[in-house]
Amino acid sequence: MSKTAAGNFFEDFRVGQQIHHATPRTVTQGDAALYLALTGSRFGIHCSETLARMAGLPRPPLEDLLTFHLVFGRTVPDVSRNAVANLGYADGRFGALLYPGDSLHAISEVIGLKESSSGTTGTVWVRTRGIKEDGRQLLEYVRWVLVNKREPESPAPEPVVPELPAHVAPEQVSVPVGLRPRHFNRMLAGAMERFDSYEIGERIDHVDGMTIDDAEHRLATRLYQNSAAVHFNAHRERSGRFGRCIVYGGHVLSIARALSFNGLGNVLHVVAINGGTHANPVFAGDTIYAWSEVLDKADLPRHPDLGALRLRLVATKDRPCHDFPYRDADAKYLPEVVLDFDYWGIVLR
Amino acid sequence: MSKTAAGNFFEDFRVGQQIHHATPRTVTQGDAALYLALTGSRFGIHCSETLARMAGLPRPPLEDLLTFHLVFGRTVPDVSRNAVANLGYADGRFGALLYPGDSLHAISEVIGLKESSSGTTGTVWVRTRGIKEDGRQLLEYVRWVLVNKREPESPAPEPVVPELPAHVAPEQVSVPVGLRPRHFNRMLAGAMERFDSYEIGERIDHVDGMTIDDAEHRLATRLYQNSAAVHFNAHRERSGRFGRCIVYGGHVLSIARALSFNGLGNVLHVVAINGGTHANPVFAGDTIYAWSEVLDKADLPRHPDLGALRLRLVATKDRPCHDFPYRDADAKYLPEVVLDFDYWGIVLR
Amino acid sequence: MSKTAAGNFFEDFRVGQQIHHATPRTVTQGDAALYLALTGSRFGIHCSETLARMAGLPRPPLEDLLTFHLVFGRTVPDVSRNAVANLGYADGRFGALLYPGDSLHAISEVIGLKESSSGTTGTVWVRTRGIKEDGRQLLEYVRWVLVNKREPESPAPEPVVPELPAHVAPEQVSVPVGLRPRHFNRMLAGAMERFDSYEIGERIDHVDGMTIDDAEHRLATRLYQNSAAVHFNAHRERSGRFGRCIVYGGHVLSIARALSFNGLGNVLHVVAINGGTHANPVFAGDTIYAWSEVLDKADLPRHPDLGALRLRLVATKDRPCHDFPYRDADAKYLPEVVLDFDYWGIVLR
Repeated sequence: MSKTAAGNFFEDFRVGQQIHHATPRTVTQGDAALYLALTGSRFGIHCSETLARMAGLPRPPLEDLLTFHLVFGRTVPDVSRNAVANLGYADGRFGALLYPGDSLHAISEVIGLKESSSGTTGTVWVRTRGIKEDGRQLLEYVRWVLVNKREPESPAPEPVVPELPAHVAPEQVSVPVGLRPRHFNRMLAGAMERFDSYEIGERIDHVDGMTIDDAEHRLATRLYQNSAAVHFNAHRERSGRFGRCIVYGGHVLSIARALSFNGLGNVLHVVAINGGTHANPVFAGDTIYAWSEVLDKADLPRHPDLGALRLRLVATKDRPCHDFPYRDADAKYLPEVVLDFDYWGIVLR
Repeated sequence: MSKTAAGNFFEDFRVGQQIHHATPRTVTQGDAALYLALTGSRFGIHCSETLARMAGLPRPPLEDLLTFHLVFGRTVPDVSRNAVANLGYADGRFGALLYPGDSLHAISEVIGLKESSSGTTGTVWVRTRGIKEDGRQLLEYVRWVLVNKREPESPAPEPVVPELPAHVAPEQVSVPVGLRPRHFNRMLAGAMERFDSYEIGERIDHVDGMTIDDAEHRLATRLYQNSAAVHFNAHRERSGRFGRCIVYGGHVLSIARALSFNGLGNVLHVVAINGGTHANPVFAGDTIYAWSEVLDKADLPRHPDLGALRLRLVATKDRPCHDFPYRDADAKYLPEVVLDFDYWGIVLR
Repeated sequence: MSKTAAGNFFEDFRVGQQIHHATPRTVTQGDAALYLALTGSRFGIHCSETLARMAGLPRPPLEDLLTFHLVFGRTVPDVSRNAVANLGYADGRFGALLYPGDSLHAISEVIGLKESSSGTTGTVWVRTRGIKEDGRQLLEYVRWVLVNKREPESPAPEPVVPELPAHVAPEQVSVPVGLRPRHFNRMLAGAMERFDSYEIGERIDHVDGMTIDDAEHRLATRLYQNSAAVHFNAHRERSGRFGRCIVYGGHVLSIARALSFNGLGNVLHVVAINGGTHANPVFAGDTIYAWSEVLDKADLPRHPDLGALRLRLVATKDRPCHDFPYRDADAKYLPEVVLDFDYWGIVLR
């Protein structure tokens, strides 16, 4: 009997199954500094005690997406070790803020299973929750992945495809407890735009580009203790599908969010993930550009000083975004488009 | 109206203008660890509580140049986003020490403007101050940069060229409050030389070399939240002046200072920047070597256990420094010389 | 008289000589985060307060091998600056745990000297101790290195070859004070195997591979303030023995230990180093794989909930380990084998 984790194959999942993922993690200021150095993020409440306090918080929490990556990383050995592709995200909602010194762990529930027509793979839907040591929920989201079967001939389970919301409803968008930026200094934050200055349909080119090297995406992905081999094992990937390692899609997402500071610096915090697709792979040496589109706006009735923007964040590789590259005439992603991410962010009024 | 920061062009600056730079920053032990991993610095008061306390300090402050880079980084979006070249530094004086947990912000005043004879660019002089959350000054320095004009035809302003000291006068060199290394253990610090053992005109080859990769300078430069595109966007730079990204000159400076430990390990702390020139660009793959020359010595009357050395720190790329490479017969920097930095450091007697 | 450290040559060492190495170091959560990002380690007591407390500890200590590298790094300027080769390790025993906030320094004693038959080099044996600020010992180990002579004609010293144990005796294996994992949650730790499930002679392929880039090994090696030029100076190494920088063998060891989580996740902590050989050099771009063999098992009489495993950890480059590559018919290491490390680890019963 092997002592080595082989990960779960499609046959190993059952609808309703609860997976308590291994290795809880205590986060520190070291994680925050590394995330900043890896992404170049300038969002103020996460790097400045001054701005965090002006926003009503005791000190800078970790970035929203760092929390997401840490939770995601925990699930990889159980959920996606044998995954062929990460197909999508939905219904992601952030809860309590994560501060240096806090500990987190992750639990997933299998909520859907459907064998592929090929019979060699199947789609697994999991709802994952990231939980703080005090029991409060940091984040939950649904992810679905295409997973290999152990044996092609094993019988297909009864297909269960979960109903998922097209996006998180505005009423479900929750502002982190304590976040009350009534005395926020916009100029200090580099965020002069107001909620009212954004219009639905408006598109913003974030202008800047960021090149990613192997050492950078590997440092990031290891920081999250995400052990997916495609990011780390160049020897094996040389004879693989792309001939080289692919960059963890979450690192591309973090880079795109950091680039979006130029134009959306006032999106203080990501509060919901409506959906996300890694449209094309990214490799070391690629330069990431990004643009955003305002998909919707929502009031936050209990937070008169804040509003919520539903944003599409699109990232490209080696293609500037002044013309907002997205899909072709057949609605297929352009080959340079690498990320299509739909989220709610909170913005100062 | 674009929501994207275009940065200031030459026409946007006025003499006397005050710029409150965005995004204050709270520094942590994570920043200190990253700086150490990026530079390999071994200066004792910055990495050892034992040595910091022997020097009279409560705990290790961040390195002098890390403070400088953090302040500098804040100014980039306002001052040098549209800069063609970073021309020089002068009159830099360090004040209060920066400790993990402290917050800083930066303010610049425009003190000079002069349009270039070409009419397409102009030189902007700014005096930048880095300030702690308690109002104490961490650092001030003058920097001048060559900035593009928005429109070549816009009229030239009245030229104002500030008078700057050739170097910080010894009387202005200030020892950080609390730094009293009366019980310092030289052997533990790896710093056996004394103030009296240095002679004006003496030159020291720091022997070692340090190769810089893209991931390294990018991590450093993002850590400082310095967003200058020339360091990060390889896609754009491939069709740019050098065909590739250039390394932030401040990273080269930090590497050279770290190399100088071998020969100047007893220069406990940098206290003033007299001037600095990034003589030639550095690219990924270049190996940095360094040498120093003692330009001057000064007593510090209120600090009988310390003296000040004025040092020229020269860094080269891909050329060892046993023959102290510097300028050619026409007083031009040799092509291998990348940095000429003139500073005051404090040394044990 | 040069102010630059030339390091010690073979003639400079005397049996009985005590070397107090320069630059003590205070470790922080920043160091821990960087080590995690550089290795991808998932050993629970080091990254999770929850698991550390379940193991009886107040909070996560730094990883055993990080402590080793920090102590080792301090010795480089004195012991191995002029080393031709790092020949081996023996009799390594870990003591007190190192926590963020602690300070360490290192002392070595020369315990053996033997000139090589060539007359141009000699072997130096040192016993190095890493010591905490409160005087408690963190670690001691013997290392022997081949060091250049300053002058080939200088006379050979009386040869002294220390007697070293083939391995640390099980009775000498000490469990860190306070480590009492009676309430440890194996599932949370991802460590379901028990001491009794391992058999002497059993071999485990750790399956995963990790590619190392220049930026990664340099960040690691600088973090340890290990200043050996072969890792950093690509300009010089281009005309050196291998034509490029070699990766610090300790980084390869840390990667191999991190990979061993897949199969040996329950080896909570390394407590003794029996021996170690860097069998072949590793260069940037190489992918590290690893396998382990159980060499011995020992009860820990005062720790009924723990046992000790003596393990051989073998790392390879660019060769998966399903067939346990090791030595050829002449007992020479295969060219793909880069590390042969013999240690005691403690395991839950």
